[in-house]
Amino acid sequence: MKILVLNGPNLNLLGRREPDIYGRLTLADIEESMRGHARKCGVEVDFFQSNDEGALVSRIGEAAGLYDGLIFNPAAYTHTSVALRDALMAVKLPCVEVHLSNPQNREDFRQANLTLGACIGQVSGFRDRSYILAMDGLIHYLKNKS
Amino acid sequence: MKILVLNGPNLNLLGRREPDIYGRLTLADIEESMRGHARKCGVEVDFFQSNDEGALVSRIGEAAGLYDGLIFNPAAYTHTSVALRDALMAVKLPCVEVHLSNPQNREDFRQANLTLGACIGQVSGFRDRSYILAMDGLIHYLKNKS
Amino acid sequence: MKILVLNGPNLNLLGRREPDIYGRLTLADIEESMRGHARKCGVEVDFFQSNDEGALVSRIGEAAGLYDGLIFNPAAYTHTSVALRDALMAVKLPCVEVHLSNPQNREDFRQANLTLGACIGQVSGFRDRSYILAMDGLIHYLKNKS
Amino acid sequence: MKILVLNGPNLNLLGRREPDIYGRLTLADIEESMRGHARKCGVEVDFFQSNDEGALVSRIGEAAGLYDGLIFNPAAYTHTSVALRDALMAVKLPCVEVHLSNPQNREDFRQANLTLGACIGQVSGFRDRSYILAMDGLIHYLKNKS
Amino acid sequence: MKILVLNGPNLNLLGRREPDIYGRLTLADIEESMRGHARKCGVEVDFFQSNDEGALVSRIGEAAGLYDGLIFNPAAYTHTSVALRDALMAVKLPCVEVHLSNPQNREDFRQANLTLGACIGQVSGFRDRSYILAMDGLIHYLKNKS
Amino acid sequence: MKILVLNGPNLNLLGRREPDIYGRLTLADIEESMRGHARKCGVEVDFFQSNDEGALVSRIGEAAGLYDGLIFNPAAYTHTSVALRDALMAVKLPCVEVHLSNPQNREDFRQANLTLGACIGQVSGFRDRSYILAMDGLIHYLKNKS
Amino acid sequence: MKILVLNGPNLNLLGRREPDIYGRLTLADIEESMRGHARKCGVEVDFFQSNDEGALVSRIGEAAGLYDGLIFNPAAYTHTSVALRDALMAVKLPCVEVHLSNPQNREDFRQANLTLGACIGQVSGFRDRSYILAMDGLIHYLKNKS
Amino acid sequence: MKILVLNGPNLNLLGRREPDIYGRLTLADIEESMRGHARKCGVEVDFFQSNDEGALVSRIGEAAGLYDGLIFNPAAYTHTSVALRDALMAVKLPCVEVHLSNPQNREDFRQANLTLGACIGQVSGFRDRSYILAMDGLIHYLKNKS
Amino acid sequence: MKILVLNGPNLNLLGRREPDIYGRLTLADIEESMRGHARKCGVEVDFFQSNDEGALVSRIGEAAGLYDGLIFNPAAYTHTSVALRDALMAVKLPCVEVHLSNPQNREDFRQANLTLGACIGQVSGFRDRSYILAMDGLIHYLKNKS
Amino acid sequence: MKILVLNGPNLNLLGRREPDIYGRLTLADIEESMRGHARKCGVEVDFFQSNDEGALVSRIGEAAGLYDGLIFNPAAYTHTSVALRDALMAVKLPCVEVHLSNPQNREDFRQANLTLGACIGQVSGFRDRSYILAMDGLIHYLKNKS
Amino acid sequence: MKILVLNGPNLNLLGRREPDIYGRLTLADIEESMRGHARKCGVEVDFFQSNDEGALVSRIGEAAGLYDGLIFNPAAYTHTSVALRDALMAVKLPCVEVHLSNPQNREDFRQANLTLGACIGQVSGFRDRSYILAMDGLIHYLKNKS
Amino acid sequence: MKILVLNGPNLNLLGRREPDIYGRLTLADIEESMRGHARKCGVEVDFFQSNDEGALVSRIGEAAGLYDGLIFNPAAYTHTSVALRDALMAVKLPCVEVHLSNPQNREDFRQANLTLGACIGQVSGFRDRSYILAMDGLIHYLKNKS
Repeated sequence: MKILVLNGPNLNLLGRREPDIYGRLTLADIEESMRGHARKCGVEVDFFQSNDEGALVSRIGEAAGLYDGLIFNPAAYTHTSVALRDALMAVKLPCVEVHLSNPQNREDFRQANLTLGACIGQVSGFRDRSYILAMDGLIHYLKNKS
Repeated sequence: MKILVLNGPNLNLLGRREPDIYGRLTLADIEESMRGHARKCGVEVDFFQSNDEGALVSRIGEAAGLYDGLIFNPAAYTHTSVALRDALMAVKLPCVEVHLSNPQNREDFRQANLTLGACIGQVSGFRDRSYILAMDGLIHYLKNKS
Repeated sequence: MKILVLNGPNLNLLGRREPDIYGRLTLADIEESMRGHARKCGVEVDFFQSNDEGALVSRIGEAAGLYDGLIFNPAAYTHTSVALRDALMAVKLPCVEVHLSNPQNREDFRQANLTLGACIGQVSGFRDRSYILAMDGLIHYLKNKS
Repeated sequence: MKILVLNGPNLNLLGRREPDIYGRLTLADIEESMRGHARKCGVEVDFFQSNDEGALVSRIGEAAGLYDGLIFNPAAYTHTSVALRDALMAVKLPCVEVHLSNPQNREDFRQANLTLGACIGQVSGFRDRSYILAMDGLIHYLKNKS
Repeated sequence: MKILVLNGPNLNLLGRREPDIYGRLTLADIEESMRGHARKCGVEVDFFQSNDEGALVSRIGEAAGLYDGLIFNPAAYTHTSVALRDALMAVKLPCVEVHLSNPQNREDFRQANLTLGACIGQVSGFRDRSYILAMDGLIHYLKNKS
Repeated sequence: MKILVLNGPNLNLLGRREPDIYGRLTLADIEESMRGHARKCGVEVDFFQSNDEGALVSRIGEAAGLYDGLIFNPAAYTHTSVALRDALMAVKLPCVEVHLSNPQNREDFRQANLTLGACIGQVSGFRDRSYILAMDGLIHYLKNKS
Repeated sequence: MKILVLNGPNLNLLGRREPDIYGRLTLADIEESMRGHARKCGVEVDFFQSNDEGALVSRIGEAAGLYDGLIFNPAAYTHTSVALRDALMAVKLPCVEVHLSNPQNREDFRQANLTLGACIGQVSGFRDRSYILAMDGLIHYLKNKS
Repeated sequence: MKILVLNGPNLNLLGRREPDIYGRLTLADIEESMRGHARKCGVEVDFFQSNDEGALVSRIGEAAGLYDGLIFNPAAYTHTSVALRDALMAVKLPCVEVHLSNPQNREDFRQANLTLGACIGQVSGFRDRSYILAMDGLIHYLKNKS
Repeated sequence: MKILVLNGPNLNLLGRREPDIYGRLTLADIEESMRGHARKCGVEVDFFQSNDEGALVSRIGEAAGLYDGLIFNPAAYTHTSVALRDALMAVKLPCVEVHLSNPQNREDFRQANLTLGACIGQVSGFRDRSYILAMDGLIHYLKNKS
Repeated sequence: MKILVLNGPNLNLLGRREPDIYGRLTLADIEESMRGHARKCGVEVDFFQSNDEGALVSRIGEAAGLYDGLIFNPAAYTHTSVALRDALMAVKLPCVEVHLSNPQNREDFRQANLTLGACIGQVSGFRDRSYILAMDGLIHYLKNKS
Repeated sequence: MKILVLNGPNLNLLGRREPDIYGRLTLADIEESMRGHARKCGVEVDFFQSNDEGALVSRIGEAAGLYDGLIFNPAAYTHTSVALRDALMAVKLPCVEVHLSNPQNREDFRQANLTLGACIGQVSGFRDRSYILAMDGLIHYLKNKS
Repeated sequence: MKILVLNGPNLNLLGRREPDIYGRLTLADIEESMRGHARKCGVEVDFFQSNDEGALVSRIGEAAGLYDGLIFNPAAYTHTSVALRDALMAVKLPCVEVHLSNPQNREDFRQANLTLGACIGQVSGFRDRSYILAMDGLIHYLKNKS
């Protein structure tokens, strides 16, 4: 079982910025802890972060056949990218959407969610723990499906 | 650590209805598996289901002081109940919102989410597993907070 | 053939209030005339009125297996209750929505109809006669289906 | 007592098209069964179908004095014709709006209903039986009024 | 100088219906008084009334070259007919829109005005006198233009 | 018979600005020609122009008892002034709204018309002639009323 | 003169929660001070609080004949309950709506007010004093009416 | 303790116009009864009425330091004046908004309330008594604050 | 293979009006060039133009069985006719929608497209050439389908 | 080169109110510093502040011929005044809109900007410095134009 | 004559994904058939596909001077990219928009079309044949223009 | 003091395209004049232009620590990029938004401004001079802050 973890724009800045809100963990820390958790669960895991919508679209397009599932934090592209939704629809890999914070109660332009409709579910609001819970959920989904 | 699990309208019908969509597990089955998981995690857990908005509001109002956190599937009241949101805001207990299915891509009147704004986060789309993941997330939240 | 007739909030006040608009018949009068009509048609009929959304949701949930169809005047809950719609969807009993008056041309907040989408049809605008016509329609539907 | 039954655009195609959805009855079949039902009820009935908004407006304008009431399935013009509404308002004959199917849950442009506001009520969702129920309702209305 | 006066749907019913609101004058009366006023002003005048959107479109299309200007009460088609607007734009004859009553403060669906954008101006609210004022305005416009 | 002619903001600039669009007549020219027309019709006429919403509200409030009717070009206040509408409603004098140009087809913020609902009718699109036609219409209205 | 004071969902939590915002007075304190004020004014007063929409609807339905007027803080149901509005309309008792805080400037879903349209007026923003002012206003209304 | 009572556009016409709706009391009568009530309460009170938005803005701007609180019926400017809201925000004096009638259930353009967000609360629907209740509320607020 | 070409309102005026915008070709010219192109492609072609919505609905209703496909320029009815959409849905013939100009960037009321949802595709913006391209596309579709 | 600086409602209160937000400079201070900057740039400058929409409209109307350009902070009238926009359009003087703060991210009713469409550009967010930058921009515009 | 064919995000996946919906042709197949068709028509053709909005913007920016026209399937960027629209407007090359399927009747977020307003026309709904028809249309346009 | 000047999509085409509208200056010319102005003001300045949203996001993310402030013309991304707003929020550098033209009065999709909310202010409408004014404003802001 092999999983690709995708992170969208500005998540490369995690930990160095606004530690009061987003915590002091960097994206590298989160990836490290996911790698450990994956090892315990006996699954392989790869990581990809990009600020570029097109690069994320391409990476999803290439994921079919190579991975069993996706964990994806589209960050700002959650609200604006039809292309990412189309990419997820095209490869038909089960994907879990992740958010560090609870996206409710923010600006109006964050109310639209274009990517979730192409995912099996969502985990949000648990900071970095959201990723671990998403991995548990995805593994559970893949085991029950097969 | 003591957790109250709340289920809203029509969830008493789980398992007996539309098993193709919602699975064959009844609410009792879900509660049984949550009880087992809670025991393993060393936390106490209580359950309450009601079709009645007012009964749910009252139960949340009484939960302060008795519980450390809430796991709540408000079902249809997710979209229509300001009273449940106000109840959650009033007791200020950390609450995780749970949904069996991915709420995205359904009717327009399900796009409004009134309760999530009073929760710390959400787990949705993993069927009955959503509840277990929500419990993991809530316990993790309570441990790090204390 | 067995039919359950459900009446929503404030319909217990029928006949005693605003007789110019809603006529002088009480809900008991309407139920009496429906009982007579049911006897002539050779069908059994039960009645339930409640001002409580949750009580109506519960009653619909229990109706599966006991009744062949529903006649339902959701009154004010027509416009606000996703829970009643979900209950109707869950039990999958054929339901006819009834209104005493023509709901068109009233306040904006009455334009939304959440329950009709879970019904087979609607009879509205014939005062108490709406119930008799709805019963005729439901019996016709049940006979042709079987 | 004399009733005019009006049918709007595309209803001349009934029975020959999409029999799975709209049934195998043609408009002639429906009119035949209405004629029989009218005879039993002791009322006269005339029929008029047109694909033309203007022809329907004219026929309604001429109906005053000749008929006691109208049964009208405006089909697609339900959603777009202010002229038909004005015609119904002008002649002030009691009119019952009929629909074969339940109009709820269809495209957005079908949510607007311009004609119902000029009618006494509506019967929808019982296929061809909607017409018979509408006739019963209209006769009951006319008898109680006089 | 030659003017065509066009009247839209249901205006053939004028005078016979709702005399309290629309006055006791028939369309024939209005046309008679316009004919007299035209004679005094030294202009020729023709009349056309139809309940049919297509017939009105055709008549406008044929008017180019035969008439110097149009006076048009589109009635209900004011709010729904893009085709009449296109016809007026195509023939490029100066047209004055007329309404018997003040169209403000009526139903929402009457707020949209599709035809006025293809006219030089509007006279509304003076009952039958609106037509005479519109003729004065149109003649004044035609004289100053030439 | 005595009439008050009110002109709103920026109409004091008429004639000196954008003569291609609004013509070369000044407000004084228009008032002069209205005075002549009033004399011929045997009515008295007063004039008031102000750029100030409050001054216009006050003048309308004082008009009751002194005048038989109003001719009013509210200009920009047409779209924004609830106070002018309330003033017209309070004094209950028949008022004709006038516009030099056809207000259709301009910016969205000009689509709202707050004052017309408190008037008997409107004349628009005939440049300065709109005022003369409005006077004719008002006189006709006042004569038929009395 | 007899008055019924109704309080909606979550108001049973008053005083114990968020004392900085809502003050330290409990609902019992408010009722006590109202009872004292009522005694001084020579009117009888009863109290009813419920988290349940249906229970409030029922209590209003039973109030006709027993009470001369209502003071009602619908709390969260202000924004979602058509049933409470219908109940108030049905019993036709003069009702004063009360809010502890100024409801303006809060979330969008609190902008809709469904109950106020069935009341004679509103007092809001004076914390617990709002109830006393509402009682003064209601007594003044009842005295002037009789 | 010194209070300024502000009245907006058209309120100078009170009593002389539409006595059936607004009562026969003039603004002078209301001010007289407020003066009496103020004397009893031991507070000073000044009055200012203007039809002019700018004059009201200026008066509010000058009120800081001279008064302890404001009672304000902005009438039509309630719905259109951002300038009055800004003035109230700038001087930071506690202000109570007053309306003679219940503003709910009127035209759409009256649903927007721009001034209330800068006030501590509102009293509406008690005719002239609204002013007395507002004064009681304001005095109570000022005493508890100091 | 037999194709029916339908043209909607005002297209009979083509060529004679606004030649700068729509070109100097008349509808007869376009039909002539289509007839030649059809001959080369070995398909039969019939033509029908009407300004009348009902006549177009009727012609489409009669086309089933007689034609293999439709080419349709609904002109103004594109934006307002639910009846034409229903007619296309009923006959289930493959239809290509044609527009002379690019419909984007025009008035708001032209943004709604009611007919395209019942067509297989659209060709727009190539003036009269749009019809030839539509014929090529339709023939290609019919050949690949069979 | 001569410039008129216009300031709208409540700006006379600058400096004395909310110094934390708007700074401690009064409008007189800003005008003083502008006068100094103007002298250095070799241009003449006049100032006008009013809380009155009509007074500002009049001043703009009189500015044509006397000034080469305008610098205008319309404050609250930015969002509500069509009359000021019309005044700017009428005099056709180049105008630069100024705001002390960044108007983005405030209440919804401040999102509409009616005046900017009649200006050449905007400077916002630099407190009192916005005025100096606007003067630099306007001078640069006037020099390049001539 | 030289044409550039641009394809947007996810079109590199064509043929390998969802062959039932999009057909079994790959983008290479489509380009091959276009190359053949171009040869027959005597025009040169280049191809560019990218998942990257910025890369497409750059390629369009460089196309001026090198190509006579563009054929562009913007895929998901049709609905979200103002930058592509601006690029097309800037280079002013005639562009034909292409879609494989009929874009009508899909999700709401696909109703917005930002790119078409900068194109001469559109061909949609003919699968891969849309590209050939678009090429025919573009060549015809370029020949008639020159 | 060190400033980074960022330019978004299509601005690399400046000067070569539509010189009548955007002037004949290229981006290189603007950068040259900014470099000169920076030298005079004693500040360092770097430049970056990209058509790529992701590249701009990355560059902003790297700017923290290296620069004291940003000058940013997001061009088309102003209206669509949540990612750029998030990037600006994350680095917390003071940023001035620049536009060559006055963005008001253009298409509806340009009314949304997503980036301005993360900036300190805006300069728009002065063509290339907007950049110089923005630099003056930013320097003034940075000096007063320190």
